Amino acid sequence: MAQQHLEPTDASAGAVTADALAGYLRAQATEFLRALRQHRENGGAAAGGSEASVDAARALRRSSRRISASLHTFRPLLDPDWSERIRPELAWLSGTLALEHAYEARLERLLLALQRLSGAMLPAQVDAVAGSRAAGAARVGATAPASAASGNPGTPTPDRGNLTVGAAKAGALLDRQLTLARTRAHSTALQALGSSRFHAVADNIAVLASEVPLAQTAATTPLPPLAAAAEDRLNDAITALPLVTAGHPYNAEALIHGLSPDPSPHPQDAPWHQVRLLLRLHRYAREVLQDAGIADVRLLAAGEALDRHRDASEAAAAAAQAARTPRIAPATAYALGVLHADQRHEVEAARFAFQQAWQKETVSTP
Amino acid sequence: MAQQHLEPTDASAGAVTADALAGYLRAQATEFLRALRQHRENGGAAAGGSEASVDAARALRRSSRRISASLHTFRPLLDPDWSERIRPELAWLSGTLALEHAYEARLERLLLALQRLSGAMLPAQVDAVAGSRAAGAARVGATAPASAASGNPGTPTPDRGNLTVGAAKAGALLDRQLTLARTRAHSTALQALGSSRFHAVADNIAVLASEVPLAQTAATTPLPPLAAAAEDRLNDAITALPLVTAGHPYNAEALIHGLSPDPSPHPQDAPWHQVRLLLRLHRYAREVLQDAGIADVRLLAAGEALDRHRDASEAAAAAAQAARTPRIAPATAYALGVLHADQRHEVEAARFAFQQAWQKETVSTP
Repeated sequence: MAQQHLEPTDASAGAVTADALAGYLRAQATEFLRALRQHRENGGAAAGGSEASVDAARALRRSSRRISASLHTFRPLLDPDWSERIRPELAWLSGTLALEHAYEARLERLLLALQRLSGAMLPAQVDAVAGSRAAGAARVGATAPASAASGNPGTPTPDRGNLTVGAAKAGALLDRQLTLARTRAHSTALQALGSSRFHAVADNIAVLASEVPLAQTAATTPLPPLAAAAEDRLNDAITALPLVTAGHPYNAEALIHGLSPDPSPHPQDAPWHQVRLLLRLHRYAREVLQDAGIADVRLLAAGEALDRHRDASEAAAAAAQAARTPRIAPATAYALGVLHADQRHEVEAARFAFQQAWQKETVSTP
Repeated sequence: MAQQHLEPTDASAGAVTADALAGYLRAQATEFLRALRQHRENGGAAAGGSEASVDAARALRRSSRRISASLHTFRPLLDPDWSERIRPELAWLSGTLALEHAYEARLERLLLALQRLSGAMLPAQVDAVAGSRAAGAARVGATAPASAASGNPGTPTPDRGNLTVGAAKAGALLDRQLTLARTRAHSTALQALGSSRFHAVADNIAVLASEVPLAQTAATTPLPPLAAAAEDRLNDAITALPLVTAGHPYNAEALIHGLSPDPSPHPQDAPWHQVRLLLRLHRYAREVLQDAGIADVRLLAAGEALDRHRDASEAAAAAAQAARTPRIAPATAYALGVLHADQRHEVEAARFAFQQAWQKETVSTP
């Protein structure tokens, strides 16, 4: 089955070897260095003109993920010492850079959900709120002073005038907790970008941009079987998912354990998170093979559903976590309970969307 | 379109007049009197041997609804004075008899949902719990002392050993509040069945069992157009429902206003409740015309979806109401919030089920 997906390149399979991988890695390394330069140029400025820095940080994460994924999927072609030294460093970097954005997106998702649940907001208002937050909040690229990042009076926040008392208090509590987490992530990211550890990563990537450290056998090792193996790992993981249940709307699976005493994220989410990572590896392997096109729209739809699954899962956990804050009012706790359940249903909806997207792909691939 | 549904009787449409209606009303009146006799024979006993009394009370409600619906749909055939005097009395009776059962079913639904949300219960256990409650709780037919109905230690209750503290407290709170409401409804129903108002209703039904008070024009008034008008009212109401949205899974409509400050049931539910009543009128009109068969399974499926919609809507409101109890712990309020949202999603699921059932019917009717 995996062979079928790779057919377009089968004719020239002999040619798809180390050259293609080296070209891809050089391009990603160049993109990394460009993003780093852009980040330094914009990131040094005060808060405000930070849009470019945000883009730069995103581009850094993007190329880090692709380099790391390629080192993993096409491991046999690369110098093992170098490859095994650089991969955890790239994971550390993209993980560190991702955190601030994740907290910000989580807060936005939860506040918008609270407003939706209060039933008083029009779509246009929701857009405006999302826009004002996106424009006003400090981010890793902005190197803003901590006071700006921690939600001082100048930071635009969603209008809570139309929230009920419980929802408003829940929103304020989430804002406080997630803004604090975001501020900490912001500082951590800034420290990381100034650290000698990061400079070592950047030096490695600079080398990669000109010369890829290949293994001695690289020239004779074809890429397609390695990409096919990545696809097989994805398909195996998807086969293990409860897709029949997920394809049955309103199956009420996602909220089971919704009142479980376990404060950790729902264990039922883990296989879906794993598929999300494997789908990304598969997508990046296709990029290396320049095997894009036919099924890309469906892969993207499936990937977006899994992103939404992850976001809703973590937002639900944040709402549950906030409800454990000591001495909150019952109305606040009630609103957080409604919010938690709402996000767990988003989890269920995302699984349904994934099932639909994936089913389409299977059907349309003859 | 309505004419199509009535085709099986069109050939003999001239014959489907007052006789059919009179026969149906006499049969329902006879059933009412039989149920009343059964209820008196069993209801006088102490609590315990109440299964027969429960059946009798259900049969009383069942025939009351059918007589009342027929008086409404086929109004032009009946003596207007008599018809307009007896209908509100039947509505009072079936409404009064329905309340106790409604509170009991609501509590059962909420406690089972709490156990499902705690993720620790197997389906077999759920059945056992439902069974033990059904067998143990006092009902209108049981004429049990108030102490038995208000949940004394002898009354089996669902096992809360596997509930979290918040869920357990929420369950205890709901049990207390809904058992109190049920006990009051029980007393009210017993008083009603002993009242002179009820005896007047029973006397009227006894007359109906032998002689139906028809209007002078009844013999020349055909039933099918009146039944078709009832179906048209149903179809008009269904056309006004947001069925496109309902047919889109996970549309998240039902939980809008989930945190609204309005303590009354969601206004968005009202059109669905109205369709539920109109569907019932349509179904009873078909019974009068003996037009059962072809589409009955679908009508039943649609009706069951709307029953579930009503039950979930009222259960969600009860959870929200319980959360307004003063001085409850935040963990209790949180569990009630999760429960409320869960039941609102049941509302959404029921709308989806109705849309699916109704779509099938439209497709299969050529």
